[in-house]
Amino acid sequence: MSTPSAAEALARLRHELAHPPFHAVLRPQALEADPATGRVAVRLPYRPDFGRAAGSGHVHGGVIAALIDLTAHAAVAVQTQRMAPTIDLRIDYLRPAPAGDLIARGHTLQLGRTIARTDVEVVDAADGRVVAVGRGTFSVHVPSPKE
Amino acid sequence: MSTPSAAEALARLRHELAHPPFHAVLRPQALEADPATGRVAVRLPYRPDFGRAAGSGHVHGGVIAALIDLTAHAAVAVQTQRMAPTIDLRIDYLRPAPAGDLIARGHTLQLGRTIARTDVEVVDAADGRVVAVGRGTFSVHVPSPKE
Amino acid sequence: MSTPSAAEALARLRHELAHPPFHAVLRPQALEADPATGRVAVRLPYRPDFGRAAGSGHVHGGVIAALIDLTAHAAVAVQTQRMAPTIDLRIDYLRPAPAGDLIARGHTLQLGRTIARTDVEVVDAADGRVVAVGRGTFSVHVPSPKE
Amino acid sequence: MSTPSAAEALARLRHELAHPPFHAVLRPQALEADPATGRVAVRLPYRPDFGRAAGSGHVHGGVIAALIDLTAHAAVAVQTQRMAPTIDLRIDYLRPAPAGDLIARGHTLQLGRTIARTDVEVVDAADGRVVAVGRGTFSVHVPSPKE
Repeated sequence: MSTPSAAEALARLRHELAHPPFHAVLRPQALEADPATGRVAVRLPYRPDFGRAAGSGHVHGGVIAALIDLTAHAAVAVQTQRMAPTIDLRIDYLRPAPAGDLIARGHTLQLGRTIARTDVEVVDAADGRVVAVGRGTFSVHVPSPKE
Repeated sequence: MSTPSAAEALARLRHELAHPPFHAVLRPQALEADPATGRVAVRLPYRPDFGRAAGSGHVHGGVIAALIDLTAHAAVAVQTQRMAPTIDLRIDYLRPAPAGDLIARGHTLQLGRTIARTDVEVVDAADGRVVAVGRGTFSVHVPSPKE
Repeated sequence: MSTPSAAEALARLRHELAHPPFHAVLRPQALEADPATGRVAVRLPYRPDFGRAAGSGHVHGGVIAALIDLTAHAAVAVQTQRMAPTIDLRIDYLRPAPAGDLIARGHTLQLGRTIARTDVEVVDAADGRVVAVGRGTFSVHVPSPKE
Repeated sequence: MSTPSAAEALARLRHELAHPPFHAVLRPQALEADPATGRVAVRLPYRPDFGRAAGSGHVHGGVIAALIDLTAHAAVAVQTQRMAPTIDLRIDYLRPAPAGDLIARGHTLQLGRTIARTDVEVVDAADGRVVAVGRGTFSVHVPSPKE
């Protein structure tokens, strides 16, 4: 597996973000993809229907969980150029995410023969404060022809 | 804090599911709430826009993460009758969730003075197979007047 | 892979617990192994040098983490009859573990082609109260001859 | 709560590592403690009885879990100058830890009113390769007089 070029990596990130039907609900945007380091950045433009309570504006924890999942997945996909099903995912919510865009930065901790591990940090785009961190394990097992 | 009646618990579950703006996107439905055991059940009717890949029908991992988050949160809220911010959440994806309704069953492992722990199991409503499990820690700290 | 008999399963559990050098430090004891369900039970006899603070008697969180790791690993090994390296492990500490024996009960949630998931519950042997729960992901990938 | 001096922080780290009875089994050594950033470093000198399999020399996952727990706990204690019970802990094992000393580097992600979050990285002291990472949530709730 050769390392993709920067342009291929960004194209792959855009593809990963555009393709899934659920992303038409969330509408994440590709910001950056570095194929050498496995780093990606994704912006999630704020919408009021992401809220966790009427009137609060704070973003729902489920939206943040989904953003972390898709960013982690994209970080792996940018390096492997293929899908990588999530095995498990852990999310720590550090503070309420105020009404406003979020930026998720993911990078691959480890890319092994059968699994990959990815870290994601979600920051408030307005002030850069970390609102949540996540870590996930992904399957990168290449099935043999008979599987 | 007195234990709510079964009717109060189900009403609280319905309130928890109806209130957040993001739930108008997901549209989870209250099935059961047992205030004595802290068990709740939530149905997530399938929609094609929950998909993780065009044509596959499989539900996106982010949808499942959000369903686990809101069910765990609701299990705590049914017992405490108040909001319980998520501290952290962990999700294990056991198999792809096929196109179809999901049922999430949550129950509170521990309800302490400052934190609660909750387990959630997500099953395929059609055949009862477990597609994912989750475990979360929630803040139930009652702030003092000066906080 | 055929299901081992109950006697083979208990023998495998005893082997798993006796073999590793670090277990000569912890000295876990095999209680039960059910090959059909993937359930195992392990007793950890208390020793004062397991303490987390001089005089408190409470068992150190690291001892509980190690007990969960080895029990989860044993639950998988009893079913697969081979080693299963830990991919990741998550532990929730519910209450301090008082001075006294602990019993860890593990069971396999999922045994797949490449990974297994295991749940473990650690109880105070004296009163059966749960002191910690754990969940882990294990590699059961059978390497091909060239790996 | 004022920030301790560097000397106070290192003294606290040494105290945290020396005090618990279980640490007389593991024998972790204080390397560094930076009170401003919440970073600590701990060395775990290798002993053959830390092994996970006779003859392999690889360090048992339970030893690494305990090292991560005590390092994370110490990182919090250095900043708060008091005990911080572990609420939950998650560990990712990246590769087998070969026979040899390990160094655990911990730092506090967040120090809140009731909880703290800590990240730990465990590296092979010989070559600096990461063998495991961990993340934990700790209770720093100061009980009121009536609790």
